[in-house]
Amino acid sequence: MLKRYLPILTWLPHYNRRLCGADLLAGAIVTMMVIPQSLAYAILAGLPPVVGLYASLLPLLAYTLLGTSRTLAVGPVAIIALMTGAALSNVAAPGSAAYLHAALVLSLLSGLMLVIMGMLRMGFLANFLSHPVIAGFLSASGILIAASQAGHLLGIEASSTALLPRVSELVSGLPEVHLPTLALGGGCLLFLVLLRLRGKRALRGLGLPGNMADLVTRAGPVLAVVVTTWITWYFDLATQGVAVIGDIPRGLPPLTLPGFDTSLWRALMIPAFLISVVGFVESVSMGQMLAARRRERISPNQELIGLGGANLAAAFSAGMPVTGGLSRTVINYDAGARTPLAGFFAAIGIGAITLYFTPALYHLPIATLAATITVAILTLVDIPMIRQTWRYSRSDFSAMALTILLTLAEGVEAGIISGVALSIGLFLYRTSRPHSALVGRIPDTEHFRNVERHDTETVSHLALLRIDESLYFANARYLEDTVYDLVATRPELEHVVLICSAVNLIDASALESLDAINARLSDSRVSLHLAEVKGPVMDQLKRSDFLDDMTGRVFLSTYAAWRELSRPASAME
Amino acid sequence: MLKRYLPILTWLPHYNRRLCGADLLAGAIVTMMVIPQSLAYAILAGLPPVVGLYASLLPLLAYTLLGTSRTLAVGPVAIIALMTGAALSNVAAPGSAAYLHAALVLSLLSGLMLVIMGMLRMGFLANFLSHPVIAGFLSASGILIAASQAGHLLGIEASSTALLPRVSELVSGLPEVHLPTLALGGGCLLFLVLLRLRGKRALRGLGLPGNMADLVTRAGPVLAVVVTTWITWYFDLATQGVAVIGDIPRGLPPLTLPGFDTSLWRALMIPAFLISVVGFVESVSMGQMLAARRRERISPNQELIGLGGANLAAAFSAGMPVTGGLSRTVINYDAGARTPLAGFFAAIGIGAITLYFTPALYHLPIATLAATITVAILTLVDIPMIRQTWRYSRSDFSAMALTILLTLAEGVEAGIISGVALSIGLFLYRTSRPHSALVGRIPDTEHFRNVERHDTETVSHLALLRIDESLYFANARYLEDTVYDLVATRPELEHVVLICSAVNLIDASALESLDAINARLSDSRVSLHLAEVKGPVMDQLKRSDFLDDMTGRVFLSTYAAWRELSRPASAME
Repeated sequence: MLKRYLPILTWLPHYNRRLCGADLLAGAIVTMMVIPQSLAYAILAGLPPVVGLYASLLPLLAYTLLGTSRTLAVGPVAIIALMTGAALSNVAAPGSAAYLHAALVLSLLSGLMLVIMGMLRMGFLANFLSHPVIAGFLSASGILIAASQAGHLLGIEASSTALLPRVSELVSGLPEVHLPTLALGGGCLLFLVLLRLRGKRALRGLGLPGNMADLVTRAGPVLAVVVTTWITWYFDLATQGVAVIGDIPRGLPPLTLPGFDTSLWRALMIPAFLISVVGFVESVSMGQMLAARRRERISPNQELIGLGGANLAAAFSAGMPVTGGLSRTVINYDAGARTPLAGFFAAIGIGAITLYFTPALYHLPIATLAATITVAILTLVDIPMIRQTWRYSRSDFSAMALTILLTLAEGVEAGIISGVALSIGLFLYRTSRPHSALVGRIPDTEHFRNVERHDTETVSHLALLRIDESLYFANARYLEDTVYDLVATRPELEHVVLICSAVNLIDASALESLDAINARLSDSRVSLHLAEVKGPVMDQLKRSDFLDDMTGRVFLSTYAAWRELSRPASAME
Repeated sequence: MLKRYLPILTWLPHYNRRLCGADLLAGAIVTMMVIPQSLAYAILAGLPPVVGLYASLLPLLAYTLLGTSRTLAVGPVAIIALMTGAALSNVAAPGSAAYLHAALVLSLLSGLMLVIMGMLRMGFLANFLSHPVIAGFLSASGILIAASQAGHLLGIEASSTALLPRVSELVSGLPEVHLPTLALGGGCLLFLVLLRLRGKRALRGLGLPGNMADLVTRAGPVLAVVVTTWITWYFDLATQGVAVIGDIPRGLPPLTLPGFDTSLWRALMIPAFLISVVGFVESVSMGQMLAARRRERISPNQELIGLGGANLAAAFSAGMPVTGGLSRTVINYDAGARTPLAGFFAAIGIGAITLYFTPALYHLPIATLAATITVAILTLVDIPMIRQTWRYSRSDFSAMALTILLTLAEGVEAGIISGVALSIGLFLYRTSRPHSALVGRIPDTEHFRNVERHDTETVSHLALLRIDESLYFANARYLEDTVYDLVATRPELEHVVLICSAVNLIDASALESLDAINARLSDSRVSLHLAEVKGPVMDQLKRSDFLDDMTGRVFLSTYAAWRELSRPASAME
């Protein structure tokens, strides 16, 4: 019981020196690697850079205690930072104390929601974010983030949050491009893109083993940070207008207490919920993928509690909303992390940085961080997935397209909510007009298929109607229409058999429709039968009067119905 | 084409004297019968009584031209009046000119929405009001209406709109009961209840034919109106504090033009939508029932246009939202109406009343109308339906219970929206955790059933898994878990066959899950096969790469898969 809620108890007793060595190395590597992105994502959310460091500290420890994934690394991530910035700028002015405080409230709410969802085992909620909606949302977010970073890369001030105004601000600002900033930012961008596209192969060509080559490629941002910081310091570019990180307070994160302000809480409720669900989906799908590779398992509901704990820790230590991050997790995994203690060691490393080394970051140019973010998030734009969805299903594609368009035009919340609503609406619409087929016997078998698609045997006084959907309120009336049309066009009918092999549910509305169909067919001297009714459906029907009132019988199989009913009525009497 | 949009063209050319006689009689009877309820429902909506008469005039003519039901009678009805009152009191003070104007805007919006829904053939939207939600909503509305009328019956002022405050107002007002009002109202109530419970049998006992007995029973409210009006006039009870209808302006309805006020339109948008859908459901289900009795058909989408036209007519003639009313339609049907011209004649009759006879209504006590409404709506409280739903399905019952509770506690809009949302949510939840079953062969047949429910034949290296639900985003992950668990617990497995007889749809998310399952099983040297894939699903799968990548095959039937795969692998090589 205790082990279920504190997964650390399952692995800590078996900890040994070999595991410790691997975890220490991974922790050290992660410490180095995540500093640029932690600073960058705090800036993306409109927060001071140090908040990103704070959010990579205690939350990591909380997840180490509570999480079930062995290798997940928790911290600020791009999408969540983007959503955080969108939510906060609705309730406070960026840079104000209220903005900082709202970030804590958002983390607190998100943490509470995740923990509650975990306790109530509501991880299934994440399933309602369909793949096309997620893919569309990530693609659009990638574009939004790139647009938000372009100003930093060019050294142009752009303050609009919506996409189109920002692009036009950037275009009209082009004449005032700040060349030193552009040189630094553009240089980094070029270097990182080349490294990503060619680096791995080049390094292997130089004789590095695959794993090391991967790691060095991933170290690109760290290298870019070191080199550009040195250049900026050496040539004193900060005084020439290159935006730099500047002073970062030294020391461990302060203890913070998010206040209770009803109107603020209410305003952040929906964003917090969306951040929780999106963060959970991103984190858990990555966790599952990596766990599968090592034949481990993670528990989605306990993951909710782990991520919830991480966000609560962020709320009380001057942080921002966090989740399991793709790039930091992959770094951790590739660096050989074996248990969550790697995360613990990384937290100690980041703590050391915030204690002693923040002055070294003074001259780090914002443009370098912008280049880092831009390269990281452009992989989110998944064109092949969009093309593939278009080919496979117009309905899935329309949900994806709506998500993309609304995310770009109206922002992250409108995009994701509309995408989910449209997916659900389309599914309901589709099930409200179910496919049904008249079936006939495939000669000399006990198998029955659609008369329009296969060569089948049929008899005129018997209609075998296969209903290809659960019967529920949305399609109950449609079923009535289908059967009435059938009876109206075939006056010689004596028996209608509803084949229920695809009917997984008959709700109270559909039961009333079946009652109505039975009565109406009985008026026309046609008997109603059922075949292949599933166990659970049959159990439920037995709790109503329908089976007693039904004019016909329930057959185990379509073949049994055929054997019994395919002789004409005259022969039966 | 023209006939489709003007159904009057289908029957008017065949009109003859015999039909005309029947319609004239029905029209005259309807005129008499609907006056009390028209006045009463206007009062229920917080509007001057005459609005109810106006709303029974031009709207009836519009429906005569556009509607497809031969016998439906359109006018104010109890539920719609209740919803109208709730919507209007949110935007204006009852009794004010703004309140009257808002009623016109509400009719206009509702009319526009109905017409647009009809043009776009969106009648299917009504299907999302499940039977349990409608039954719950009607039951709760019945209680709300009874509570709203109790004050009129007792002669107590009660102004709260919510249920509990109103009940406590009534209870605390009991010492001030106005006895003459109570005598009139209580007398009417008793008379109407007795007539309803015993009247038909008593009249038949006196030798009246069944049809006539029905009609006389239904005339009870008219009799009550005539008698109590006479009493009130004779004893001059109005001066002693009995509330009466009072002055009603004489003359035909004035032409009105609802103004365009963005904030008012926006505030009434949702109520207008709900009124449209609820009115449509009430009207069309009754229309279908009566049409079926006479072997006629109605077209739901054209009905939307007919009802929309009626509401537009109401908006331009000082009316209120209308729909096909249960009691007025039944009166029309029982009185022998044969074509919509009966409605035309009734409209002429009501026009004559508003022109010449409104002074006769001066002394009509409000308490009489309250008694009429109370008796009419208490039949809405459908206890047997509630009990039956409880027995059949806890999930349907919970939607019903929520609808009842929220309608009573929070009002009609909250009730119906929550009921619909919960029905949809429960359906999605249910489909997100689909039933699946391992099946085995029923010996010596080609039929396969659940191994846990039937005696079946199985082999250990072959798992036949029947999925009892369409595969879509909400359950894609659940499918993965099910298959992985299966493979983990049965190391001797060589083949997994997914039986797709109940799978009516595989969306893009589920396709990704199938891809993942295929890859994962392939790692464990297990082949994945499909069986009984339906035509439309197969067509769609062919548009992806999945079938090429799949390690196994697609079998036409489970039996074909069994024949091929039930021999052990060693025998196959």
